[in-house]
Amino acid sequence: MKFPKVRPSIEKMQGYTPGEQPADIAQWIKLNTNENPYPPSPKCADILKSIDIEKLRLYPSPAGDSLRQTIANTFGVKPQNVVLGNGSDDILSMTFRVFCEAQEEMAMVTPSYSLYTSLAEIQNVNCRQIPLNDDFGLPDDFVAQIQGCKLLMIPCPNAPTGSIFKHATLEAIADVFQGAVLIDEAYADFAEENAIALLEHHPNMIISRTLSKSYALAGLRVGFAIAAPEIIESYMKVKDSYNVGYLPQKIAQAAIEDQAYLKQTCQSIIAERKRAATELEKRGFTIVPSQSNFLFAMPPDGNGKRCYETLKSHKILVRFFPGEVTGRYVRITIGTPAQMDQLLSVVGTSY
Amino acid sequence: MKFPKVRPSIEKMQGYTPGEQPADIAQWIKLNTNENPYPPSPKCADILKSIDIEKLRLYPSPAGDSLRQTIANTFGVKPQNVVLGNGSDDILSMTFRVFCEAQEEMAMVTPSYSLYTSLAEIQNVNCRQIPLNDDFGLPDDFVAQIQGCKLLMIPCPNAPTGSIFKHATLEAIADVFQGAVLIDEAYADFAEENAIALLEHHPNMIISRTLSKSYALAGLRVGFAIAAPEIIESYMKVKDSYNVGYLPQKIAQAAIEDQAYLKQTCQSIIAERKRAATELEKRGFTIVPSQSNFLFAMPPDGNGKRCYETLKSHKILVRFFPGEVTGRYVRITIGTPAQMDQLLSVVGTSY
Repeated sequence: MKFPKVRPSIEKMQGYTPGEQPADIAQWIKLNTNENPYPPSPKCADILKSIDIEKLRLYPSPAGDSLRQTIANTFGVKPQNVVLGNGSDDILSMTFRVFCEAQEEMAMVTPSYSLYTSLAEIQNVNCRQIPLNDDFGLPDDFVAQIQGCKLLMIPCPNAPTGSIFKHATLEAIADVFQGAVLIDEAYADFAEENAIALLEHHPNMIISRTLSKSYALAGLRVGFAIAAPEIIESYMKVKDSYNVGYLPQKIAQAAIEDQAYLKQTCQSIIAERKRAATELEKRGFTIVPSQSNFLFAMPPDGNGKRCYETLKSHKILVRFFPGEVTGRYVRITIGTPAQMDQLLSVVGTSY
Repeated sequence: MKFPKVRPSIEKMQGYTPGEQPADIAQWIKLNTNENPYPPSPKCADILKSIDIEKLRLYPSPAGDSLRQTIANTFGVKPQNVVLGNGSDDILSMTFRVFCEAQEEMAMVTPSYSLYTSLAEIQNVNCRQIPLNDDFGLPDDFVAQIQGCKLLMIPCPNAPTGSIFKHATLEAIADVFQGAVLIDEAYADFAEENAIALLEHHPNMIISRTLSKSYALAGLRVGFAIAAPEIIESYMKVKDSYNVGYLPQKIAQAAIEDQAYLKQTCQSIIAERKRAATELEKRGFTIVPSQSNFLFAMPPDGNGKRCYETLKSHKILVRFFPGEVTGRYVRITIGTPAQMDQLLSVVGTSY
């Protein structure tokens, strides 16, 4: 039996490992993949109920015109500034294919979202990893360190730290950096500000968004990017013609139109984030200031793995990232107050 | 304003143009994108109605375990032989990223599915186009012509011709070709046979399938590939972690489980294909023998464009592909008998 040769970069790569998805989900408190503890907007349920299955017979709108218009209205941009993705994963993957040739370099900070390294491997792009300072801020010579790269992928708020990079800093980077700057705003709805307004004066910025976190629609697979029309045009060439199905287009539109519900649920999560941080600090944890829907928390003994395992033995799933820095922490998604109480109770008896 | 540099291959490419999707769809008889004239299985409607919106809060199964098992059962293979795609477009796009480095070559026949050339452009892969014989069969020296290519993409039944390549021929190709052979079976449910059984003895074959045509679920975006586990592993590394959402996983499973409905609707389409072919031949058209859900039909004057425009002026959309060979034809999706009668009536008064 002879198998065809796959690309060497694919052969040697490991592939991205998503967070655990236990099959017996009802038995767990699942705080490991930054899902929303609240349901999607009731408007989504209404739309879902109203959908005629016959609509699925036809191909969906290739660009998702109606949803694109809704996003444009919501963010004060034009539809030509928007491209839809099959989740923001699709946007991030397309970003590499738009900007990076094989053997070229892209930049990211570390710790950050490890998917970027997997995407770089797939595209055979070299990944320059710039370590953050001890406080998870950007080093002073960051711009010098990323010189020559074609692309910078930077989440704001960052994951898994939950902390933000100041907009003045991001602007200063975009002003001098020659490549594209993708600001991954997966968690921006939980933050005090977002970078949408910066796009106008920074034509090399792209902002990606997802409905998986703040809109409680991780199972729907809808994300989008906002950027200059000249950049969006390239994404439109690279994307699969019908990359977002009819159902996700309709349900996402209902979700985005219900901004009141979004604000209300985000505020509940932010309030619980503050309470959980305070309570964990009382129990000896060190908490990175978070503007996201999770906490990057260092237990009193600086042993993230033990904390992860202790919680897991109590049927509470959080995320542990091995590594010299990240290994001291666990990443805890903000759940409901009742879920967080259970976590705090386990922590209280274990530390 | 300075824009970041996109990859030259993206900058210079045109992008794939999907078939027209008129907004005032109810006004048209739409026979241009090979959609199914019948609705999806009633089981899909039942599942859709039963879905709790709260399920969308969580990420879907990354590999789509349950759907994968259903596909494996249906085709007599193992789940490890199956990878899901966000439509078969996703499978086709991944195929390039698994097998082809930039500057390497892939092979396809012409006329064939023009998306392959767009995918080659995105990946900066050279596309060797092998012209078919006048009867749209493979030239005798086909294997010699594709030598050195990393990948052969070949639809069977072919599009836009609707004709098949004999399995003995495909086997002979796979036996000597050093690269991967992707057999795009988008239309195989309308054909007399499929190539699934060939996989066992041809480890360089990959078969892609879609639910967009025979299952009447173009709007759902589900496709899959069947191949050796060693090959599927590479696809799993390249695919987005959650490339198929919760709703498509559930609805696709219901559709595939209802094989009786699939057979019944496919048989209706095949019967109508035979009738329409005969009737068009009576009106002076030349019809390529079809094993798909469409007819590649040459009008009496050999002017595909005029035929397309005539039908369009009567609110009937078919597909016209400019080109020396394809320009003599139109591609007509098989609709309901009533829709085909309307087309035949326009044809009858125009030729």
